[in-house]
Amino acid sequence: MNKVILLNQRPEGLPVESDFKFIEEEIPVPKTGEILLKTLYVSVDPYLRGRMKDVKSYIAPFKLGEPIQSALITEVITSSNDKFKEGDFLLGYLDWKEYQISTGEGLTKVDPEAASLSSYLGILGATGLTAYMGLKEIGLPKPGETVIVSGAAGAVGNVVGQIAKIMGCRVIGLAGSDEKIELLKSKFQYDEGINYKTTKDLAAAIKEVCPEGVNIYFDNVGGEVSDAVYENLTYKSRIIVCGAVALYNDVEPALAPRVEWRLVVHSATMSGFLLHDYSNQLPAAVQQLTKWFKEGKITQSETIVKGFDQIPNAFIGLFEGKNNGKMVVEI
Amino acid sequence: MNKVILLNQRPEGLPVESDFKFIEEEIPVPKTGEILLKTLYVSVDPYLRGRMKDVKSYIAPFKLGEPIQSALITEVITSSNDKFKEGDFLLGYLDWKEYQISTGEGLTKVDPEAASLSSYLGILGATGLTAYMGLKEIGLPKPGETVIVSGAAGAVGNVVGQIAKIMGCRVIGLAGSDEKIELLKSKFQYDEGINYKTTKDLAAAIKEVCPEGVNIYFDNVGGEVSDAVYENLTYKSRIIVCGAVALYNDVEPALAPRVEWRLVVHSATMSGFLLHDYSNQLPAAVQQLTKWFKEGKITQSETIVKGFDQIPNAFIGLFEGKNNGKMVVEI
Repeated sequence: MNKVILLNQRPEGLPVESDFKFIEEEIPVPKTGEILLKTLYVSVDPYLRGRMKDVKSYIAPFKLGEPIQSALITEVITSSNDKFKEGDFLLGYLDWKEYQISTGEGLTKVDPEAASLSSYLGILGATGLTAYMGLKEIGLPKPGETVIVSGAAGAVGNVVGQIAKIMGCRVIGLAGSDEKIELLKSKFQYDEGINYKTTKDLAAAIKEVCPEGVNIYFDNVGGEVSDAVYENLTYKSRIIVCGAVALYNDVEPALAPRVEWRLVVHSATMSGFLLHDYSNQLPAAVQQLTKWFKEGKITQSETIVKGFDQIPNAFIGLFEGKNNGKMVVEI
Repeated sequence: MNKVILLNQRPEGLPVESDFKFIEEEIPVPKTGEILLKTLYVSVDPYLRGRMKDVKSYIAPFKLGEPIQSALITEVITSSNDKFKEGDFLLGYLDWKEYQISTGEGLTKVDPEAASLSSYLGILGATGLTAYMGLKEIGLPKPGETVIVSGAAGAVGNVVGQIAKIMGCRVIGLAGSDEKIELLKSKFQYDEGINYKTTKDLAAAIKEVCPEGVNIYFDNVGGEVSDAVYENLTYKSRIIVCGAVALYNDVEPALAPRVEWRLVVHSATMSGFLLHDYSNQLPAAVQQLTKWFKEGKITQSETIVKGFDQIPNAFIGLFEGKNNGKMVVEI
């Protein structure tokens, strides 16, 4: 039998296990032109929380009673499609199922010799690309500039720090535990780290390590951490709004001091983005990331949770800061 | 005797007349290399409120007990400087005095034949330039796009609408009275106007006239009006934060729903700017504005208040929406 995870109800606030429903169904049989895929790795990502809300956004919401989808690494078990053969490894946005049928459309072959399979969900996948494209295209980093990153030990954040260093910047990371701060400096090339949970006056702490202000803020978290960074902007600062983990579970929109006037007095820019905006540039970006990865200039960081049954818990754990780097479920 | 206006105390909230102090002094006598200037027109602008606060910003705060400064049109009364002669008209950032001495440094000659003297404070001065540079450089308008402007009947706002029309955009203005809305459409080429004071659900009213969303938001006002516009952003919207008249008098920072996530879901950008950022481009911009003005493609709008004694009241009136277009005091 085949296990499948459905959206049982739309989460209110922090998702809980009962928002998800496990069902079993027959393992399907591919027709001509189709392939049967076995799920090997499941990417769980904060943005999925947005798709669980019933609101219009850049991507359609999940439907109640239907399977959740995310980026998966799968193996071809049987193929009735000339383009794919048994044993191929395919990356794509697919259902949370142990086994599923596909025409292969929208799926990409990945090479298990070049890198570990899970890295195609992380540093060589959407995670690494998000870090790279956001920093490069919106951050416009120049050597010697100061970059600050929230959620710095998270999936995207740890890569941002490493790439910013390659680009000659000074990099400060914000994270929520002393262990993460240690990791930022020992493994991800960060120059400084600040534990925002134990720091009383975060704005003052940032000022201490960025006395001339912050040129680039790569924000993965949102919330009050950002307000402290905004107090340290400087002339022509660039703010890259990548995500808002701190806010995705809010039932009412969070209130905060208005940021607009700070943008005026610093001639600063704040931009959101989606990877999709840069689809033309992604092939070259994958090449660049792969090159740096092979040269050992960037390293991957993963938190791997095991077992299909653990997918919902791994997802919920993202909002509790349980991951260092990319959170992946190995089936 | 010479009248002078000093900053008497730093305003708390909305400025009041007692924040200003009138004194009299001897009319000064120019030394070699100096000129004696008589003030003809005084520009009063919302940004001056910021300089009345004792906080570090892009420009130094006014000092207590010293003259306020703004952009003035002056006439040379006597000259001991070869570069200037009696009867020249000079534009510059100068003291709120009936007469003052200058070396002429930083002052620009203006031509009373080419346009009215006060227009060099308005449509051909910082006001027009702010509208043009912000719209052009941050707004990046494309023909057929929808532009919405807050404070649309104000000094900058009325010019933004006219230029956006020249650039082929559809333009919607937000203003605070039915008279202003009428003016937007009859005089400033706006396609639509919304009275934000009498409209119950402003976000819905904007949606009605912008069913496909807002491509460009030129914000002169800040505050809750902006929140309603933010609900109508679309893919790759650009928000030009030019000023925040609604907020300059706040004693405590205003709280508002966070805007960051909206920037993410729409891949939108919000930027502040100062005219100074574009100093290299200003000569060409003045030429362009002058050309449009002479061709009758843009028209000026002024509220002229008369009398040196009325300068503080004219300034205070800016925050009460008493001006249509540029507020100028004629001495």
